[in-house]
Amino acid sequence: LEKIVISDLKLGILGGGQLGKMLALAASSWDVKTYILDEGEDMPAAKVCYEFRQGNFKDYETAYDFGKNLDLLTVEIESVNIEALEALEQQGLRVYPSSAVLKIIQDKGLQNEFLASNGFPKSKFSLYESKDAVLRALNAGEIKLPFVQKLRRFGYDGRGVKVIREKKDLEHLFEEPSLVEECVNISKEISVMAARNERGEVVVYPPVEMVFNPKANLLEYLFCPAALEPSLSNEAENLAKRIIEKLGLVGVLAVELFLDHDNRLWVNELAPRPHNSGHHTIESCITSQYEQHLRGIFNFPLGSTKLKMPSVMVNLLGEAGYQGPVRYEGLTECMAIEGVKIHIYGKKETRPFRKMGHVTILDHDLARAKAKAQNVLKKLKVVA
Amino acid sequence: LEKIVISDLKLGILGGGQLGKMLALAASSWDVKTYILDEGEDMPAAKVCYEFRQGNFKDYETAYDFGKNLDLLTVEIESVNIEALEALEQQGLRVYPSSAVLKIIQDKGLQNEFLASNGFPKSKFSLYESKDAVLRALNAGEIKLPFVQKLRRFGYDGRGVKVIREKKDLEHLFEEPSLVEECVNISKEISVMAARNERGEVVVYPPVEMVFNPKANLLEYLFCPAALEPSLSNEAENLAKRIIEKLGLVGVLAVELFLDHDNRLWVNELAPRPHNSGHHTIESCITSQYEQHLRGIFNFPLGSTKLKMPSVMVNLLGEAGYQGPVRYEGLTECMAIEGVKIHIYGKKETRPFRKMGHVTILDHDLARAKAKAQNVLKKLKVVA
Repeated sequence: LEKIVISDLKLGILGGGQLGKMLALAASSWDVKTYILDEGEDMPAAKVCYEFRQGNFKDYETAYDFGKNLDLLTVEIESVNIEALEALEQQGLRVYPSSAVLKIIQDKGLQNEFLASNGFPKSKFSLYESKDAVLRALNAGEIKLPFVQKLRRFGYDGRGVKVIREKKDLEHLFEEPSLVEECVNISKEISVMAARNERGEVVVYPPVEMVFNPKANLLEYLFCPAALEPSLSNEAENLAKRIIEKLGLVGVLAVELFLDHDNRLWVNELAPRPHNSGHHTIESCITSQYEQHLRGIFNFPLGSTKLKMPSVMVNLLGEAGYQGPVRYEGLTECMAIEGVKIHIYGKKETRPFRKMGHVTILDHDLARAKAKAQNVLKKLKVVA
Repeated sequence: LEKIVISDLKLGILGGGQLGKMLALAASSWDVKTYILDEGEDMPAAKVCYEFRQGNFKDYETAYDFGKNLDLLTVEIESVNIEALEALEQQGLRVYPSSAVLKIIQDKGLQNEFLASNGFPKSKFSLYESKDAVLRALNAGEIKLPFVQKLRRFGYDGRGVKVIREKKDLEHLFEEPSLVEECVNISKEISVMAARNERGEVVVYPPVEMVFNPKANLLEYLFCPAALEPSLSNEAENLAKRIIEKLGLVGVLAVELFLDHDNRLWVNELAPRPHNSGHHTIESCITSQYEQHLRGIFNFPLGSTKLKMPSVMVNLLGEAGYQGPVRYEGLTECMAIEGVKIHIYGKKETRPFRKMGHVTILDHDLARAKAKAQNVLKKLKVVA
């Protein structure tokens, strides 16, 4: 850090959304200079980074050109141009997470194969080139209903995942290359954030528990610490630790898990970057996931992941039925609730279910924090 | 907030030092657009605010011109051009803290008269136009040694204050208009941060205790909560509450207090803005002093001031004997200590005792936090 602060080291970030913004804010507290590449000039991170460049990080030339004058490159999203990263790495640029790790995680087929072949608990899956191939496998009895179909690439924020429960759902199958997974009999959804630096030090955060709205199939809120027996909590943490080590990932990794009704843990999926399920760490933990990511990629000592206070996090999503210049209702009303911390990302346009911000609710009593979260969900509306 | 976020409301801040920077970072979490005026292009806040303008906020034309297109104006320093603020207020601009409050606090003579005339505990003082006038008063027996001489204006960061213990110190007396105060028999130095919004809601933070290095007469560290009996702690909080109400200040106010050996509290001085003694609130309290200041000036509900975790704060000062492009020693070593949170302001040049950053140390055990702070003080050096 002593050298980075004074040497004008250039840290590049591919992606200038909310994760890039919060990463840039964390970097600013250390006076680390951030260079961000993303398309819109109005991106959330554009005004808080040191230098913002407009361009598409999925494009080889653009990503390569952006990276070639930097000292270190990271991402806030995994769907970046891998070939550009490989070329940059070959020229000696430090890229964390590495192109090799991103390549595995970017493709859910490879990601699942990585998990299964290394003995991590992953429900049975197979890969298919097309909708027809899935149907053939079903007819041949190789897979059976119900199952989950996931696009191999470019799924994001719940897009690219379909639960196929019965025959009539089959018409909705994705056409593109996909994987089909056996359904887990889910009791709880858990997420564990892990971090690792270049020299191999690893830390994990207390597991968080995600609560879904059964009707909308949308995350309603998540809370930390998860309501798990200590042995299960330890098991979840160890799983995350072993996965980040096996991947050799540098930076933070979100490990999303299912707990089934027999108290077994299954890996759902991985995200090799700061993650929605780690937003609460900003206020709730000694080291935020953003600072931790920086510690990891700069090969600094990792920070304490201890809880300062339990918390609940709710996403501020664009209301269904509204599209256009954003308007918020109920923000100041919610600010009056003790322990409510509001984050507005600064996106100009809302769309149904678009992530426009989040709210973290701190309370020593988690039950009370959950009640406050319900109150926030009722009062806060993102409309147009 | 709902309106501010979408209306491109322009929040101006006079001053782009570390306090302006941390205020801009807090504003960014709400997507509030900050416009900052200060002289150097390399100021700490220049890259994190929405728009930075170079200019001198002590100059009438510059400050007026900067303010006239804004919607709300605040300060990170009190030595701004008051006449410009008055002119802007007359045109309907909301300025918080107001020019009237700044006028009182900017001049330590008026500040002391405000405190004394309103019955706040202030040690006996008198005002003088010159060094000669002080000497005449001493010869006439109107004041006696030892005493404290303070410049009426533009004292900052301990500059502008002299303790005159004995006759030979008299040659060092300031020539400029000053006040002379009776020495308090100091047992402890305490600071209490208060906040108030436009509609008159008031909150106070837990008192912090400042520990000085007796040799260097410099703040060594401060810790929160202060080691005070509950009755004294309450008394300090009430004092801060009554002062902010009497001033009618909108925003945050730091109230620095002395505790004497008879357990009496005396007001030392006031700062009408985020303050060094409130840095720890970023990590240690539910609402940071920066977010609280924004809540106050926007007339939002004020935030909880509860402690999340006890903490110790140490300033990162330029080492004596070094001047020039800054270099840091021991930052990463200190990062390895659990609970150490590093803030580097981003000033390019160090000077002896210049505030270059600060470190907050979180620990549930305050004694252990203090030991860690000593360790940080030993390891961390700001040199050139």
